[in-house]
Amino acid sequence: MKSKFVVIEGLEGAGKTTARDTVVSVLREHGVNEIVFTREPGGTPLAEKLRDLFKRGVDGELPTIKAEVLMLYAARVQLVETVIKPAMARGAWVVGDRHDLSSQAYQGGGRGVDQQLMASLRDTVLGGFRPDLTLYLDLPPLVGLQRARARGELDRIEQEALPFFERTRARYLALAAQDESIVTVDASQSLEQVTAAIRDCVSQWLQQQEGA
Amino acid sequence: MKSKFVVIEGLEGAGKTTARDTVVSVLREHGVNEIVFTREPGGTPLAEKLRDLFKRGVDGELPTIKAEVLMLYAARVQLVETVIKPAMARGAWVVGDRHDLSSQAYQGGGRGVDQQLMASLRDTVLGGFRPDLTLYLDLPPLVGLQRARARGELDRIEQEALPFFERTRARYLALAAQDESIVTVDASQSLEQVTAAIRDCVSQWLQQQEGA
Repeated sequence: MKSKFVVIEGLEGAGKTTARDTVVSVLREHGVNEIVFTREPGGTPLAEKLRDLFKRGVDGELPTIKAEVLMLYAARVQLVETVIKPAMARGAWVVGDRHDLSSQAYQGGGRGVDQQLMASLRDTVLGGFRPDLTLYLDLPPLVGLQRARARGELDRIEQEALPFFERTRARYLALAAQDESIVTVDASQSLEQVTAAIRDCVSQWLQQQEGA
Repeated sequence: MKSKFVVIEGLEGAGKTTARDTVVSVLREHGVNEIVFTREPGGTPLAEKLRDLFKRGVDGELPTIKAEVLMLYAARVQLVETVIKPAMARGAWVVGDRHDLSSQAYQGGGRGVDQQLMASLRDTVLGGFRPDLTLYLDLPPLVGLQRARARGELDRIEQEALPFFERTRARYLALAAQDESIVTVDASQSLEQVTAAIRDCVSQWLQQQEGA
């Protein structure tokens, strides 16, 4: 089967890491050998540096929201052009922890950057490049935050108020509803139920791909 | 007079620093008190860090051309929003060593990034923000490179770079020809002639502004 780009999306605490392990085991059962893992923002030394810069700033100077969005897209296009596309070109599959949908949801939905600007940047920078399948792990923000806090992993963005995450979730849901390549998984269920849902979803999708 | 943003543009070796001094003395003669100097890419700690990153890369990884352009725009919007606009809002004038025209000429012209993409990024990121006056110091690239190195012979790398600078210059000239706010100065003249031309140009422009 031709190599594919599968992305896992969702708020902090939604269970992306566990979901990734589930996706990978299903892919392996279907005979996928080489899998490249990415995380965004980041995934190359330069992109990780940009991630660090936009999260921490320099000498107390944080990026403006527009600068942040541009740094995110710089990191993304670097990753797509130097890691994801070359991997897929040699037949590897790519499993991504976040991709463009995160920017649309967090910066577009959460921070309120003009939706037209976000879509225009995506199209300008990435052209037609899109994930083949995105699993969006949907969860009420309060539940996700409580899970993430238990891991002691809250950074600047995560510390922002709950309404920010509500807006982010709303944008995730709205974009998932209008894009057939995005599957929404109810991540508020038990771990076993979420894992089973992901297994079913990925297996069915793979069978469709094999049949196509 | 309302504060203005004056930008000096041109290839390396065109004499931007001397031109800046000339512009500043003319502004002072016309009663401009507070002048803020910027240079691009850079001008804030974060923007300087981005400049450093896109010039040197990280661990041997250089940005792709699209990532470079996005980092340039991240640095630019950071400078515009946190330095240039606030300075102008409190009545200061801003004199810039390079601004957006450099990206249009170097990345658009020299590196051949799609002109539509460059214009789209500029409009998306900067909105309608533009310099009030741009002095473009025009010079044959060979002359500029020789001046920059202060010797008559170019090394191999610089000779190979000549077509790049020719393309960059051609884009500068083309953009200057279609924008009334960009004045082309013949920088191949003697220093005295160039300085006189800049004095005349800025003085006339200031008189127009005072009259308007």
